[in-house]
Amino acid sequence: MAVGKEEAVVYHPVKGFKLGTGSAGIKKPGRKDLVVMEIPVGSSLASVFTLNQFCAAPVRVAKKHLATGALPRYLLTNTGNANAGTGEQGIIDAEACCQALASKMRCDAESILPFSTGVIGEPLPVAKITAGLESAIANLSEEGWEEAAHGIMTTDTRPKGASDQFEYQGKTVTVTGISKGSGMIMPNMATMLGYVATDAEVEPNLLQRLLSHTSDRSFNRITVDGDTSTNDACILVATGQSGVEITDLEPVLMERFTQALEHVMLSLAHAIVKDGEGATKFVEVRVEKAGSTEEALKVAYTIAHSPLVKTALFASDPNWGRILACVGRAGVHDLDVSDVQIWLDEVCIVDKGARATSYTEEQGQQVMNRENICIRVILNRGGFVDQVWTTDLSHDYVTINAEYRS
Amino acid sequence: MAVGKEEAVVYHPVKGFKLGTGSAGIKKPGRKDLVVMEIPVGSSLASVFTLNQFCAAPVRVAKKHLATGALPRYLLTNTGNANAGTGEQGIIDAEACCQALASKMRCDAESILPFSTGVIGEPLPVAKITAGLESAIANLSEEGWEEAAHGIMTTDTRPKGASDQFEYQGKTVTVTGISKGSGMIMPNMATMLGYVATDAEVEPNLLQRLLSHTSDRSFNRITVDGDTSTNDACILVATGQSGVEITDLEPVLMERFTQALEHVMLSLAHAIVKDGEGATKFVEVRVEKAGSTEEALKVAYTIAHSPLVKTALFASDPNWGRILACVGRAGVHDLDVSDVQIWLDEVCIVDKGARATSYTEEQGQQVMNRENICIRVILNRGGFVDQVWTTDLSHDYVTINAEYRS
Repeated sequence: MAVGKEEAVVYHPVKGFKLGTGSAGIKKPGRKDLVVMEIPVGSSLASVFTLNQFCAAPVRVAKKHLATGALPRYLLTNTGNANAGTGEQGIIDAEACCQALASKMRCDAESILPFSTGVIGEPLPVAKITAGLESAIANLSEEGWEEAAHGIMTTDTRPKGASDQFEYQGKTVTVTGISKGSGMIMPNMATMLGYVATDAEVEPNLLQRLLSHTSDRSFNRITVDGDTSTNDACILVATGQSGVEITDLEPVLMERFTQALEHVMLSLAHAIVKDGEGATKFVEVRVEKAGSTEEALKVAYTIAHSPLVKTALFASDPNWGRILACVGRAGVHDLDVSDVQIWLDEVCIVDKGARATSYTEEQGQQVMNRENICIRVILNRGGFVDQVWTTDLSHDYVTINAEYRS
Repeated sequence: MAVGKEEAVVYHPVKGFKLGTGSAGIKKPGRKDLVVMEIPVGSSLASVFTLNQFCAAPVRVAKKHLATGALPRYLLTNTGNANAGTGEQGIIDAEACCQALASKMRCDAESILPFSTGVIGEPLPVAKITAGLESAIANLSEEGWEEAAHGIMTTDTRPKGASDQFEYQGKTVTVTGISKGSGMIMPNMATMLGYVATDAEVEPNLLQRLLSHTSDRSFNRITVDGDTSTNDACILVATGQSGVEITDLEPVLMERFTQALEHVMLSLAHAIVKDGEGATKFVEVRVEKAGSTEEALKVAYTIAHSPLVKTALFASDPNWGRILACVGRAGVHDLDVSDVQIWLDEVCIVDKGARATSYTEEQGQQVMNRENICIRVILNRGGFVDQVWTTDLSHDYVTINAEYRS
């Protein structure tokens, strides 16, 4: 189950960036579970990783390889096994997979960044992955996006991709990305993998700044169940092969590029929420007139994480009392509840801290029947606004997570 | 559904404290939904209330009446309607109910403390409650505990009560209590009502100290879904009619009384968790060797609130990776993950930050099949220990909360 229909994605290839998907039979024989991406020489790369202190082995190895300062040449992703909670053996296993790919591609093992997603705590099946590499390498192609979007899926019910293009001085700039993730979605990159590439030329420091900025406004604003994974990572590669360079010196171009990048990142993040485990609704929780960004997010996440609000959303029940109770327990200092207003889309449900006098159950029900809903809380304490995106909590969520390993 | 069998409670009456249960037909005709408790002159009373900033009207009125400094003479509880999010009209309605009972009992309205639990945001049916008062008053009796335990239930599937007695110099001291609550259970008194009475003599300041201390170790350590209600309250009354006085000057007696009080409070709190909405397991999350109490609770609550851990518990799946991921994201500063050990009852599942080498899936499965489970995290950072109690997350939880209002 997922919210809305699956939208067809036109994947514009990114000049120089190749993807190959293969099969290692990690969980099921024949399943596409291995993806190799090739980064051309001369590219820049930026990355963000999980903040969970139990970083999985591949995250630790990727960070170590990045620390050499050399440009990574390959991204190696397996699904079905997260290689997390596997201690020192996990590190050895992740390095072994890098080494195997490096031997085949005739490069250093440090030029490979490994990514793993799936069950935590089981030993990585290194031999299977090594044996499967050939099938992925054989498919390496600039046209490989769609297959790779399938190849990185775990409990995802749909592939997730987004692509944007714009023209600049007769040249076309492309930004294309894929992502995976459906449970354990939380700020700080929860079980999410994202790979975005562009053929713009962007020097590494600027690229890192752009990735940090846009991931903070996209992947770090989504939550399904409040859990943060040990394996999350988002990689942004700029191959430069469009011949268009993005710099601070050309603000108009910079603006246009940032728009395209944000569009892709936000599409990928929203796609993850819509495919949230068991999701039947896509919900924006927006907090306005807050005293600070921190305060806005505190209230937004308290609502977005509340099982009582989420089950009410699943039941299409305009139970505004549960939303109001969340605002009251969000820990906002000295909150004057009589200043609080709450809206469901265009319907004001709470005014001056109590049910709005104009509100009728029918109005609330009409909004709740929708698949896309905005819960808007107006605190009237200042000028800050922020929002997060989330889903409801359904029977399917319980089923999926109670049965994931069986 | 609830964890374990319903245990028979022997309610020892508390000399001078009377309870009467009646019917006001608030949600369903004939349902017992109204409880009046009578406090004899000469008693002491202590109270703790919700920390949710959206206090419901009855909480605000109760606090106002307590502020007069006079001893309350009656506690008036209705179920079916929480009188929360009802603005100024809610205050007027709560006062009207107090006034109606005061007229009948020939006392001031300020001598009544009102309590409401049920749906948020609907106007309190004052006329129904007023009309139902007579049926509750007619039953006032020291023997009324068991009926009252039923009368304060909402989505509870069982009444909750506990009672303890001890002898002191030939006299018997009794502590008896009832509670309600099954969803929205969180620290800070989440949708919970608790009424405890003793025939010991305790001066008000000491009684408040004892209630604050024991509620912090019982009601404030339980969590079902992380939501905190707008209506929670716990009242402790000491009638003094046993003739035994508890004071700081008699530490042995004080210790014995505190034990009895803690036993009752903890039994009431655990009963709430076991009756948690849809609960199939009763889980203690215990964090040992933490750097501080705050740190221990941070880790304990992160685990206890994780939907992924809770669904794994529901599935009896020893998915220790999800527990480990919680420890990693709990926000413990400078955590050395290689120091962390995790146990499921007597089975060590994580050692040195990875799966314990001695661990087998069969061992974990054996523990997970139990109804009562202890998740024990050893941080090896200091000398602090604390624990919380919680439940799993089941299909029934979703069903109950998605359908509560229909």
